[in-house]
Amino acid sequence: MVVYLVGAGPGDPELITLKAINVLKKADMVIYDRLANDEILKYAKDAEFIYVGKKAGSHYKRQDEINQILIEEGRKKDVVVRLKGGDPFVFGRGGEEMLALLEEGIDVEFVPGLTSAIGAPTSVGLPVTHRGIATSFTIVTGHEDPTKAKKQVKWNFNADTIIILMGVGRLEENMRELMKYKDPKTPVCVIENGTMPDQRIITGTLENITEKDIRPPALVIVGHVVDIFKKAKL
Amino acid sequence: MVVYLVGAGPGDPELITLKAINVLKKADMVIYDRLANDEILKYAKDAEFIYVGKKAGSHYKRQDEINQILIEEGRKKDVVVRLKGGDPFVFGRGGEEMLALLEEGIDVEFVPGLTSAIGAPTSVGLPVTHRGIATSFTIVTGHEDPTKAKKQVKWNFNADTIIILMGVGRLEENMRELMKYKDPKTPVCVIENGTMPDQRIITGTLENITEKDIRPPALVIVGHVVDIFKKAKL
Repeated sequence: MVVYLVGAGPGDPELITLKAINVLKKADMVIYDRLANDEILKYAKDAEFIYVGKKAGSHYKRQDEINQILIEEGRKKDVVVRLKGGDPFVFGRGGEEMLALLEEGIDVEFVPGLTSAIGAPTSVGLPVTHRGIATSFTIVTGHEDPTKAKKQVKWNFNADTIIILMGVGRLEENMRELMKYKDPKTPVCVIENGTMPDQRIITGTLENITEKDIRPPALVIVGHVVDIFKKAKL
Repeated sequence: MVVYLVGAGPGDPELITLKAINVLKKADMVIYDRLANDEILKYAKDAEFIYVGKKAGSHYKRQDEINQILIEEGRKKDVVVRLKGGDPFVFGRGGEEMLALLEEGIDVEFVPGLTSAIGAPTSVGLPVTHRGIATSFTIVTGHEDPTKAKKQVKWNFNADTIIILMGVGRLEENMRELMKYKDPKTPVCVIENGTMPDQRIITGTLENITEKDIRPPALVIVGHVVDIFKKAKL
């Protein structure tokens, strides 16, 4: 009896790891979020499935409800896979699920996945680090939990590259925050549907990217590494 | 005639992507760095190999020499794979190789890989983000190019979690820098040989981690997410 927290990768079904495939193959039960691509569920030939992601027009299942499902299935089944887009611990709330399961004495194993924050820019030839330009990068959620009173994302990150996941909903607000600390002409690249066939790339600057037509899901890359990407496309 | 810049992942040969395997299978030539694990080279059944990584006791091949090899092989062979540990653009100098190849009119494609900066902590149940504790993380090299006059890593990152790759050589200096901005009691976790059978985990704080026996290669994770990991181990 074990629950695997497994990362599904950024969307392209070829960007799953061999380990995730091998764990899915032996799964009795797969509990999954909305994924960029459901194709990878095919590896779980012998499994039942529970979908706990967003339904069209309705709300997410509450985290405590998901935890309860994981605990119940973890007690009943030999191999449960909890499958999440990207990496289970990069804004995936995997930590909370891990703690809930361990408190109930259920074993948990971990299979990291490729986060779209790195996988999407690398796939298009946008290096998140580059000699002489970027020796550090920060990955941040653009959509901080609004119910969280105590902690607010501060945008004065001193990393050379800033990558914002779930970057569309509050794009204007977040670009305005970043312009307090960075030149408004700092280049920005938005990748919509990264690594998927309907991927779109939009470039601009901190001050003008909000004028462009941008639709979720998208990630936002801020910094002079975007110039390297543009140079490569010439 | 194409050169693929491919990420090999953090070390565990199961943590390679399906896409990297598929590209290796059709490679005529593989040009590779020192990898945590050479086992994945087996997928390149029909390829010749050139090793351009560090040799015992000697120096790395210079980057311009590597670029030259890539250009020469890229002109001669149908499918060249340039294989790097982790992700090709996370401190891998992949951006320089991309630009050198494109300048010579050689096509370049990209296959992202799992960086050990995320793959190693996730594999051991250390969430780099956690609700209420970390909504951002910064990945930085601990070993900035010392010949680089213009730019210095500033350590006043305001991200909640800081992950230092190649963190051992200048550990003392880097912890001292971080203590200018963070509480000396901030928890630290070091993962040696992440995702490999000889993996070791050492925990401490900014002020005492340097007293422990730590050997490269290792990555250093700084922040209160380390408390979540310790809680999970109880």
